Formats: sequence, structure tokens, C-alpha cells
Amino acid sequence: MSVKGTLYIISAPSGAGKTSLVKALLEDSRDKDQRVRVSVSHTTRAMRSGEQDGVDYNFVTMDWFDSLIADNQFLEYADVFTNKYGTSRVWVESELRQGVDVILEIDWQGAAQVRQLMPDAVSIFILPPSQSELRKRLTGRGQDADDVIDLRMSQAASEMRHYAEFDYVVINDDFSVALAQLQAVLTAQKLKLLNQRTRYADLLNDLLSV
Amino acid sequence: MSVKGTLYIISAPSGAGKTSLVKALLEDSRDKDQRVRVSVSHTTRAMRSGEQDGVDYNFVTMDWFDSLIADNQFLEYADVFTNKYGTSRVWVESELRQGVDVILEIDWQGAAQVRQLMPDAVSIFILPPSQSELRKRLTGRGQDADDVIDLRMSQAASEMRHYAEFDYVVINDDFSVALAQLQAVLTAQKLKLLNQRTRYADLLNDLLSV
Repeated sequence: MSVKGTLYIISAPSGAGKTSLVKALLEDSRDKDQRVRVSVSHTTRAMRSGEQDGVDYNFVTMDWFDSLIADNQFLEYADVFTNKYGTSRVWVESELRQGVDVILEIDWQGAAQVRQLMPDAVSIFILPPSQSELRKRLTGRGQDADDVIDLRMSQAASEMRHYAEFDYVVINDDFSVALAQLQAVLTAQKLKLLNQRTRYADLLNDLLSV
Repeated sequence: MSVKGTLYIISAPSGAGKTSLVKALLEDSRDKDQRVRVSVSHTTRAMRSGEQDGVDYNFVTMDWFDSLIADNQFLEYADVFTNKYGTSRVWVESELRQGVDVILEIDWQGAAQVRQLMPDAVSIFILPPSQSELRKRLTGRGQDADDVIDLRMSQAASEMRHYAEFDYVVINDDFSVALAQLQAVLTAQKLKLLNQRTRYADLLNDLLSV
């Protein structure tokens, strides 16, 4: 029996720094020869300039998306305005089977769907260090009107209200501290009994054969 | 409400390097201003030259030890030959209440007793990297007879047979890797929802008040 990968759900409000943290986590895991990948979502929205099919998203038609839903092919999916977004169950399960850890960057609603189907998933919620810092990060280059910022803040609050549904909470105040904390969660997960007893089955046989 | 400390149980066969790892873990936590302490056991055995009461052990009389047992003052205790050894429940609970993480270096039998009383304890089992390396470590300076080593090996195996009762398993092959893994378990534990929501109660109020 080979060691299965772990499924990580990482959620956060806009402005918490999730995308940068996950990017750094992936680079770090590549350096350490660990096998971690981020799931690429399916979407029905049009490809934008600079985007690559299969890299930024898997771009599919609405009919195709609906047939995947009917065929129970999504771990989670959502309607956002007139478009659909979803996470392929087949791809995720195949990676996990090969021992690759998979990260899903999804919102609390997607997280809730995935937890139902994959109860062993480990979920992490990332928070900004203060309301004022969040407002600063959501203000961008200062070109947005106050009511736009207010809307973003209230959307962020709606997302944050679900932090307590997650296994771990990371505060992204100092980026390198938050990154080290995410890494610690991944490292600790590998040390759990069920993972170690599979990974070190031969060693355990050797040690217990005294 | 303040954040409570976590109780860690660390067990291992002789020769796995537990004591050196725990010592390094404590030094590291002092450097990082984290609050981690190792419980000092009570014992009825005589103090040896170089030992200090309250540092190496709390040295007590057999009558006093028995009165502590009768008074339900131990988290765990054991008879080893003609002496008794135990872990003070009052001390541990007081440290945890003050937010200090407490490490118990005890064997699998003590671990089983503690789990009954403190189900939130996090337990870690440390293993050597191979049977031959364990034998080498147990041979010491090469002055022991083979049958003495064999006895130590079989005692180690009796302890190791209980690894699967623990939450985490760490293989002590490369000392610095094993130390980093122990640190990751402690870091991840601090990030768990219940700890973070207490530690960051004010921040959460601030963020959710948008």
C-alpha cells in the first residue's frame, strides 16, 4: 500500500494574501522535492488575454460543465454571476492516489461541499491581521471609490464569518511567519500515525521483528 | 478566556534519542520565547550523586508517594522494580492553565493512563531508523555483553509495539530533521481552530465587525 496524498482546503477573504502564500508554499515544496499541487478549476467563463487553458483554468462550455455535474464529476462547484466554476473530482482523486498532496483554493461554500465528500480533507483559513490592514489591501492603488471598498469589505466579512468551520487558522501578518505556519501544518500532517505507518511499513517490520 | 497550554506525551524506546530531542526542543522554544516545560517526575528512589531535588526528580518517601496516589494526585504512575515514579496532576494542570505547553517523557503504559484522564493530550512516538542502528546505540561503548544488549533490544521492541497508540510518529534518523518535525507538530497544534479563536478573540471581533 502506498502513502496517499492529503487534500488541503485553503480559504480566505480577498486581501488575506492566500494566493501569494499558496504560490510560495508550492515553490518551497518544489525546492524540498515534496509533491504538492494546486487544483486547476474548471470554468465556463471566457479565457482572458494572457490566460492558458489547463494552467489558469480548464475552460469548458456550459453544456460540457452541466454534463460533468450530471455525471457527478465535481468535488464542488458554484455559480458566480453567469458563470460556473468547479473542482474536478477525478483529477483530485488521481493525484491523491499517487501520493501527491492537493491544495484547493476555494471559498467557504466550496469547502463545505468538499468536506461532505472528502471528510479527511484538512482545511485552513487565512485571516488578515486587522480590519484596517484588510481595508488597505482591498483599496489597491487607491483608485477605487469608497463604496466599492465598502462592498469588498462586506464580502470579506461574509467569507470570514465561516472561519470556525476550518481545522486550522493562520493569521497573515508577517508573510514569512504565515508561510512557515502553513508549512508546519503540512509537515505535521505527514507525521500522523496513519501516514507514517504506511510510509515506514518496512522499517516497522524490521524494528518489531527483534 | 486565555489560551491553555497543550499536553504532549513523548514516548520512545531507549536508544531512539528522545531525551536529546526533547532537550533541543526546549532550548529552541526558549530561544523563540515559547512557553514549553518538561514535567519533573516524582520518585521514591534515592537521589544519586549529581542529581538535584526538583530538577531531575521530585524525591519523596514511599509513604508520601502512596498518600499522593490515594489522593488521586497522579496523572500516571508506575512501579519500576522496588521504586515508584509518577507525574503530578496538579503541577501539569496548573502549567496548562497558565498557557504553558507541558511535555511528559513517559512510557507507553504511562501514556495510556494519561490519555484516559487528558483526552486532549497530543502524543508522539519516536522511533530509531533501523534495528541495526538501534542495536548500535544500545551497545554504548561496546563494553556490554551480547546478552545484555539482547535484553535491551527486546525491551525496546516491547515499547515499540505500542507506537500505533500515538497520534504522531517521528523517525529519528537525522537529528535536525527529527527536531524540525517535533517543532512542526507543536506549531501546527497552536494553529488549530480552538487555540487560535481564543488567542485572537479580539482580532476576530474586529474583523467580523465590518
